[in-house]
Amino acid sequence: MSKGRLEAFSDGVMAIIITIMVLELKVPHGSDWTVLQPLLPVFLSYVLSFIYVGIYWNNHHHLLKACRHVNGGILWANLHLLFWLSLFPFVTGWMGENHFTPLPSAFYGVVLLLAAIAYYILQTLIITEQGGRESKLAIAIGKDWKGKLSPVLYAVAIGASFVRPWIAGCIYVCVALMWLVPDRRLEKVVEKSEIREDS
Amino acid sequence: MSKGRLEAFSDGVMAIIITIMVLELKVPHGSDWTVLQPLLPVFLSYVLSFIYVGIYWNNHHHLLKACRHVNGGILWANLHLLFWLSLFPFVTGWMGENHFTPLPSAFYGVVLLLAAIAYYILQTLIITEQGGRESKLAIAIGKDWKGKLSPVLYAVAIGASFVRPWIAGCIYVCVALMWLVPDRRLEKVVEKSEIREDS
Amino acid sequence: MSKGRLEAFSDGVMAIIITIMVLELKVPHGSDWTVLQPLLPVFLSYVLSFIYVGIYWNNHHHLLKACRHVNGGILWANLHLLFWLSLFPFVTGWMGENHFTPLPSAFYGVVLLLAAIAYYILQTLIITEQGGRESKLAIAIGKDWKGKLSPVLYAVAIGASFVRPWIAGCIYVCVALMWLVPDRRLEKVVEKSEIREDS
Amino acid sequence: MSKGRLEAFSDGVMAIIITIMVLELKVPHGSDWTVLQPLLPVFLSYVLSFIYVGIYWNNHHHLLKACRHVNGGILWANLHLLFWLSLFPFVTGWMGENHFTPLPSAFYGVVLLLAAIAYYILQTLIITEQGGRESKLAIAIGKDWKGKLSPVLYAVAIGASFVRPWIAGCIYVCVALMWLVPDRRLEKVVEKSEIREDS
Repeated sequence: MSKGRLEAFSDGVMAIIITIMVLELKVPHGSDWTVLQPLLPVFLSYVLSFIYVGIYWNNHHHLLKACRHVNGGILWANLHLLFWLSLFPFVTGWMGENHFTPLPSAFYGVVLLLAAIAYYILQTLIITEQGGRESKLAIAIGKDWKGKLSPVLYAVAIGASFVRPWIAGCIYVCVALMWLVPDRRLEKVVEKSEIREDS
Repeated sequence: MSKGRLEAFSDGVMAIIITIMVLELKVPHGSDWTVLQPLLPVFLSYVLSFIYVGIYWNNHHHLLKACRHVNGGILWANLHLLFWLSLFPFVTGWMGENHFTPLPSAFYGVVLLLAAIAYYILQTLIITEQGGRESKLAIAIGKDWKGKLSPVLYAVAIGASFVRPWIAGCIYVCVALMWLVPDRRLEKVVEKSEIREDS
Repeated sequence: MSKGRLEAFSDGVMAIIITIMVLELKVPHGSDWTVLQPLLPVFLSYVLSFIYVGIYWNNHHHLLKACRHVNGGILWANLHLLFWLSLFPFVTGWMGENHFTPLPSAFYGVVLLLAAIAYYILQTLIITEQGGRESKLAIAIGKDWKGKLSPVLYAVAIGASFVRPWIAGCIYVCVALMWLVPDRRLEKVVEKSEIREDS
Repeated sequence: MSKGRLEAFSDGVMAIIITIMVLELKVPHGSDWTVLQPLLPVFLSYVLSFIYVGIYWNNHHHLLKACRHVNGGILWANLHLLFWLSLFPFVTGWMGENHFTPLPSAFYGVVLLLAAIAYYILQTLIITEQGGRESKLAIAIGKDWKGKLSPVLYAVAIGASFVRPWIAGCIYVCVALMWLVPDRRLEKVVEKSEIREDS
């Protein structure tokens, strides 16, 4: 039950984040194609952030499914993750309105990086709570190359922002695509254990 | 449980979309009838979009009730649908503030069309997951003439927007009314199967 | 389950309405008492609307608790109620920013009146679905003098707005207070029937 | 079930409050470091308020877990608490945009104080409903020194705002840190009683 409320609250926050971002797509004055043009980069960064929040929601969902008991540490690690996610509308709007200039692009990466670290902390706490390396979740995640590669790529993108912002943009898109490929690892193990529990 | 969280998240997003749209109805300065006049088209497009989101929520509700297991494909098809629905506040505000001029009217239709396609994809994935044509849902939907007619009408409306925007408006209203007539097909079959399961 | 999702969606919409209203309380520039003065009427109308949404949420909660099965009519009657509630932020902001001038005060009453009618329709549909006059809910509500008196008072307030807006304001406050007195009727009957079902 | 809906509604409202606050962090025009500078105090006050809402959500969670039956008094005491929490975005934005000047700092404290009092009322009503001083919750809370010290510190901070606003700021941070230390009292007793109930 405790877990249910944590999920419900996280769902609520992520649902609001994903929807509030669209408010940065300000309704333009005038009704011809020229007023839409400056909105294109805002729209593109909205699409990117929508996918990122979708990925976080998806992974968060699998992560908490594996978790059995919520303690104070997990609760605050979860709020910490939600904090960085809550800055998505700001950095998305800033990057979009400035047409992917260096500083906003770098800040977008910084928020992605800090959200990734927050996710990693949450994951570690849930594994610890389950008894460490032999826990179901630890096995499910395995070597976690995606989780380890992403922060490195974000860091590279932050640096690249100041040289060639479009490289940073490409990296953000690539990391999103990398995660979009469904994370079969978790799904499989959770399913297996469910089958085992059922039988 | 997995399904429950998908429903909760979708409910959250749709609840926020339906409520955020009202923010486009900006509180006017002054307090006589003249300040309300320019708000009338914004209000009318708000009513229309409110009904559309209500229809989507209603149908989504029946669709997921028929679904038994959520896989990665269904999850992303659902997020894809929510993405297009999240653009409702933008196109509603744009169409309303410009008093149903051609381009905003056409864009409203484009978002309706893409949401309809996203819904169709989600429906197809759920049917596939249930075992294809003989699935409960496939039988419930039957020939799905509403689902097939709507995109055609949206496409017609998009074209009509550039000639006579009021025709597009009429089509949007008619499609909404068409769906408002309760979708007894799904309700019936779900009820029947529930009775069967109970007995 | 169906009912659960209707409740969840309604809760979501009402939670957003109640929170979004505070956005009309715009953060002022400057930091002395003079900048707060023009916010006072906005704050007062916010308090009033917060209480009204709270009352609706409370009554809605008891109403749906008594309901057993959600059909299409109930679903749309519920959305119809949410529609009028969704206009609360607009009329609240308009009335507050114009310091309770005639037209905004009247419009506030109109939205209250239409929400009350929508609530009445929803209540009637739930009673009908339960088998009419002998239903648990019909008995619980009894003569429903509050439900019948409120629309009359709103109508009086709408008229009074154009003569003496402060009378309208007083009526809105009085109706809210009248409903704040807990509605023991519903609580009692629901409790009784629960005891009966348990034994 | 009644309790479930109260929790869901409260979660919804708190999720929206925590996310809406970020909207005060307005996307700046321009993309260099100079445009970020005026946002720093807004960001800092956002972080502080995020932690406060997180603490309230956390404590609210434990409080309602201990509650068994929701009556009218508890319901309205809960809405009363949500009302003061709903003013967080306003006072956070006002304090941040004015760089912690006296009046906004004092108002931040006033809202914190009133929220603390509202929480205390809710807690008292839940204890009363459970049978008073010997209730599980009353024992869990014990002397409740945190709950008693916080309002005193808020009152001191309100006074200090008019002399040295930075002292008020320090007090707000300290109280937040004091609560961040996990409230083991409630957790322990709830766990114990769960063990007892299980066995």
